[in-house]
Amino acid sequence: LPHVNELPSLVAGVRHAIDRHRMLAGGETVVVAVSGGADSTALLRVLLALRAELRLTIHVAHFNHLLRTDADADAAFVAEMSRDLGLPYHEGRGAAREHAERTKRSLEDAARHLRYAFLTSVAARAGAEAVATGHTLDDQAETVLMRLLRGTGAHGLVGIPPVRAHGGVRVIRPLLQVPHVVLEAVLRAHNVAWREDPTNRDHAILRNRVRHVLLPLLEGYNPDVRRTLSRLAEVVREEAAALDALAAPVVNGVLTGSAPVRVVLGAFLQLPPALQRRALREAVRRARGNVQGVGFVHLEGARRLALEGRTGGIAELPGGARIVRVRGALEVRGEPVPQRRYAR
Amino acid sequence: LPHVNELPSLVAGVRHAIDRHRMLAGGETVVVAVSGGADSTALLRVLLALRAELRLTIHVAHFNHLLRTDADADAAFVAEMSRDLGLPYHEGRGAAREHAERTKRSLEDAARHLRYAFLTSVAARAGAEAVATGHTLDDQAETVLMRLLRGTGAHGLVGIPPVRAHGGVRVIRPLLQVPHVVLEAVLRAHNVAWREDPTNRDHAILRNRVRHVLLPLLEGYNPDVRRTLSRLAEVVREEAAALDALAAPVVNGVLTGSAPVRVVLGAFLQLPPALQRRALREAVRRARGNVQGVGFVHLEGARRLALEGRTGGIAELPGGARIVRVRGALEVRGEPVPQRRYAR
Repeated sequence: LPHVNELPSLVAGVRHAIDRHRMLAGGETVVVAVSGGADSTALLRVLLALRAELRLTIHVAHFNHLLRTDADADAAFVAEMSRDLGLPYHEGRGAAREHAERTKRSLEDAARHLRYAFLTSVAARAGAEAVATGHTLDDQAETVLMRLLRGTGAHGLVGIPPVRAHGGVRVIRPLLQVPHVVLEAVLRAHNVAWREDPTNRDHAILRNRVRHVLLPLLEGYNPDVRRTLSRLAEVVREEAAALDALAAPVVNGVLTGSAPVRVVLGAFLQLPPALQRRALREAVRRARGNVQGVGFVHLEGARRLALEGRTGGIAELPGGARIVRVRGALEVRGEPVPQRRYAR
Repeated sequence: LPHVNELPSLVAGVRHAIDRHRMLAGGETVVVAVSGGADSTALLRVLLALRAELRLTIHVAHFNHLLRTDADADAAFVAEMSRDLGLPYHEGRGAAREHAERTKRSLEDAARHLRYAFLTSVAARAGAEAVATGHTLDDQAETVLMRLLRGTGAHGLVGIPPVRAHGGVRVIRPLLQVPHVVLEAVLRAHNVAWREDPTNRDHAILRNRVRHVLLPLLEGYNPDVRRTLSRLAEVVREEAAALDALAAPVVNGVLTGSAPVRVVLGAFLQLPPALQRRALREAVRRARGNVQGVGFVHLEGARRLALEGRTGGIAELPGGARIVRVRGALEVRGEPVPQRRYAR
């Protein structure tokens, strides 16, 4: 177990991660997403410890998904903590389950969608450049492992990005290299309370089985497996970023037009598979403005249409894009996915 | 369990893999590595089924590692099978354990080294273009999983390549997409005998624990996990190949000289991490003719020397290369690794 007085080294480590991934330059307003659990509670404390040095203005945001009976108590806990710390507090609510049914998303996906829409809107109101979330090394390892198990292309293996643009703000994950166990130990050592989420123990949820059963088992093969999986995500992300940058002119060379976007087959078929997938992804992006929901299997389906299909053949993509094979080209047509807004 | 009469579809599937990865064009002489186990015995039968269609000349090669008391019986079994099938038979022997001690390799590594040296020498004598080995989907999944657990860069995740140049011949793995269980079923259905290797059951060997404990457990999360891991290896290989090709001119742009090879820091530091690693790998290849033993962690050590080191700082690489930081550059010097030859 980590030493009880790890706060200074924890703060220094987070500072290093913030610099390395350019999460914050200094002087920003940051909205910290706080559920009341150990991770986000620790995140808030660490950012407070860095507040003066980085000249940060900190807001707290809590989203109530209306999923659990003690959700109101969680909100009250975070509200009181914010008041005690003298921080502006923003609360949002949304019925995740109904949203999932209405939009045919998984519950986890629907909850995430509502939560990030809320966080983005708080950031806009607060004039914040960044939203900080409490994802840890454990979350990263679980995400990578679940994607490995489910099957994924290289893009899926990148896991949780440390920095990501979302709805006009920067979402940052300063704790992504910190094990959950360190955060709990630091909170305990400093007598900081947090709320336990009882659903974390529910083994009907895949992530919890991965966390409580599979990862401990893999630690029998490699005690440092969480960090190993996290580093893999980082390397794959770096490889993908380098390839994206170098591939851009090649990819542009096989695409023409805009409505529809045409993939010129003669040139396309000369590309190696990894660039063919990027060309198709870019064609969808141009045709409908985003590539939401378009994964490895869909790109492979489109690739088969190019490699083995006939004129008139069609590949449908999730979110309303369609690829039609015509003479000498694929035509990619997209209907923009309607932007679902968070209902206040 | 697979249907008992899968030989035709097995042969068709292998034929597809041979074409797809350009393992054989037709008309080649092929040395088939046969241990006498189910996988390599099935490989021999499948290649015989394709012999006329692909106009192949087939030789059998068996290597005795002198590791087990029944090793001679294995050799006799393969010799007899070859005679029954009317195929030229080549036998080699080498003391893998002594070779491991002498060259400070792991036993598995030493055995592999002796075996491939033997197979290459047989190919040369037989005038063969290719050596075929019986690696299966299970071997691929185990390899990827072991590398994931041990920690690896993207290059490690590519797993067992379907085709690889080795000592002037092409090593091909026609069964790399076929599950072991299918091969056993087909052999049984056709009353073809094989020899069981009792060490396959030894759980002191990591690969066997991964095979018999970990993979069955992961199948509880995804019944098709072997194929999922194998497909991951293929995608990562395609991504790495595309990046290697596109990165080559950029990488060449930061390297000068030959003894020592100089990595020009001004240009090097402008590259993203994935290309910095490729530049360092290429510098080692130029300095000493190969990159044997140089893995992700060594490249990261060299990268730190470039990013944070001082003039005079040194990074040693396995196999006798040394990187020294001088003003404005890294100097990479290599002693060629002595080519250890298979002792007849």
